[in-house]
Amino acid sequence: MKLLITGGGGFLGARLARELLRQGQLAGGRITELAIADLVAPPPDLLADARVKSHVGKMLDQGELFASGFDGVFHLASAVSGECELDFDLGLRSNLDSTRLLLEGLRRAGNTPRMVFSSSVAVFGPDASNPLPDLVADKTLPSPQTSYGTHKLMCEYLLADYTRKGFIDGRSARLMTVSVRPGRPNGAASSFFSGIIREPLAGIEAICPVDPNVTHPIASPANTVRSLITVFEASQQAMGGRLAINLPGLNMRVGDMLAALEQVAGAKVRQRVRFERDERIATIVSNWARGASAERAGALGLQPDASFRAIIEQYIEDCRTQPGYPSHALDGLK
Amino acid sequence: MKLLITGGGGFLGARLARELLRQGQLAGGRITELAIADLVAPPPDLLADARVKSHVGKMLDQGELFASGFDGVFHLASAVSGECELDFDLGLRSNLDSTRLLLEGLRRAGNTPRMVFSSSVAVFGPDASNPLPDLVADKTLPSPQTSYGTHKLMCEYLLADYTRKGFIDGRSARLMTVSVRPGRPNGAASSFFSGIIREPLAGIEAICPVDPNVTHPIASPANTVRSLITVFEASQQAMGGRLAINLPGLNMRVGDMLAALEQVAGAKVRQRVRFERDERIATIVSNWARGASAERAGALGLQPDASFRAIIEQYIEDCRTQPGYPSHALDGLK
Repeated sequence: MKLLITGGGGFLGARLARELLRQGQLAGGRITELAIADLVAPPPDLLADARVKSHVGKMLDQGELFASGFDGVFHLASAVSGECELDFDLGLRSNLDSTRLLLEGLRRAGNTPRMVFSSSVAVFGPDASNPLPDLVADKTLPSPQTSYGTHKLMCEYLLADYTRKGFIDGRSARLMTVSVRPGRPNGAASSFFSGIIREPLAGIEAICPVDPNVTHPIASPANTVRSLITVFEASQQAMGGRLAINLPGLNMRVGDMLAALEQVAGAKVRQRVRFERDERIATIVSNWARGASAERAGALGLQPDASFRAIIEQYIEDCRTQPGYPSHALDGLK
Repeated sequence: MKLLITGGGGFLGARLARELLRQGQLAGGRITELAIADLVAPPPDLLADARVKSHVGKMLDQGELFASGFDGVFHLASAVSGECELDFDLGLRSNLDSTRLLLEGLRRAGNTPRMVFSSSVAVFGPDASNPLPDLVADKTLPSPQTSYGTHKLMCEYLLADYTRKGFIDGRSARLMTVSVRPGRPNGAASSFFSGIIREPLAGIEAICPVDPNVTHPIASPANTVRSLITVFEASQQAMGGRLAINLPGLNMRVGDMLAALEQVAGAKVRQRVRFERDERIATIVSNWARGASAERAGALGLQPDASFRAIIEQYIEDCRTQPGYPSHALDGLK
């Protein structure tokens, strides 16, 4: 079985790749090749695996690769929300044109590969005619308030149409905000949802750009990776339709995330977080879902993380055992 | 005021152009130039008007025109549903790429022009997770079951994002099926909704490819043109949001459309319609809305036609008085 992960050089993509290589199989097929396409090379542990083939470069230059006959694809590559608000053309290229090129390549190959597209809870937002409900559901009408969310939604529908035509067997899964991500802050407006946990644990001050009463659906990296694999392995019938599904999220208040941090790591760590409102970030986030439900994912057996405390404990464990976590990640606990 | 109508060589676009030229103004501005872009030249009566500038050719070749600084745009050009099901690439080019090129041109011009995009009730359809309600509303979650509907929906969301960014002042209006169209059957799967009235009135046999119990929302050409102009002239506040709105439709049963024909034109005319199921058409239509509501359009003062009988009577009157109706159009009444 020949697989492709776009965005496989990034944190989530690399973690997915690791899990697939560990399993050795997917949906009953043995994984013989795992192509990773990204702007950056995947981490060394992945490159060391003989099944991994790295394709470094822009997605828009990978048309031939995409048409080379994959059995399965996880499409994770994306410019993030903050970047796309600052650079409209980048968003169109990276999130719409690239996905179209990938879909066309898979169609051209002609073998109806299975494909999981990582969409986002950012498809939801308030319109004057369509206020956000307390929980956005699979069937909530999306009215995205960012270019990122707009392009994700457009790609969901394009994927559904390629699937209806039999060109691919596509599934769109809306990721909740992933926390705790390792590494440095990125251009995503959601970056602070990891930063306010990660930085204090590393002994570094962190700024929270939004009010402690902000609520948002959160999922751990491990839960997100498990969800993507489950969505890939589900039958079309089990998916229950071609519309996108919400992945499970834990609906968390920012203040309660920090309370969980204090429970796990103590008051000194918690006190490294300072509230300093950033209007640009706060405005984007105020147009995001305050919470989410995930009925169709639940029917596939997927559940939210047990608690945010459990998510932090998993992060600490990952820092000690997983590749890709910096050595100073837990310096704040000393 | 410099206006552009794409698809202005077609029946609806030409009728809209005629109405705008008759009014002489739009939203309080005097119309000094009306550019018409289409694959075919507009009818002679339009070409004879000094304000009309005809641009014949593919939309994808009109990038410079689109960036030339319009104050207002009606974007009606489109490949129709049946064509797009038969030729997937044509649909992507004509309905998605062309709209993107238009939006980019308007953005490049930099004057935030107002734009009305003619979307379609075909954005609605049943998904396994999302059955069609009896009436599709402004806020019904779309799950299109044709490429045509998919691309219209994608463009609605793209237009909303260009509007959010301030590049244009865009509004998407979902047209109901327009009946009675003059002329010959076209590639639209909905073509028979006009054919079963138009052909018998012309003394020609017509085939109805679906069951008489099929129901569908219908609007007359005059009501549709009036709706497009009203949507253009409405303030952003009156539009009540950036999501697309449904235009008003009369929810008609095919059998009742033919009963109205008999009332207006007699049994002999009615008997020229023969039911002969066409699987391809019937399958497309079975995935369409059975009826629609139009709450936000209602708030703008827009209402459905009074009755289907009134629509037929309007068609007969148009055949006698309007340009573009063939001389034999009412031969069946003799």
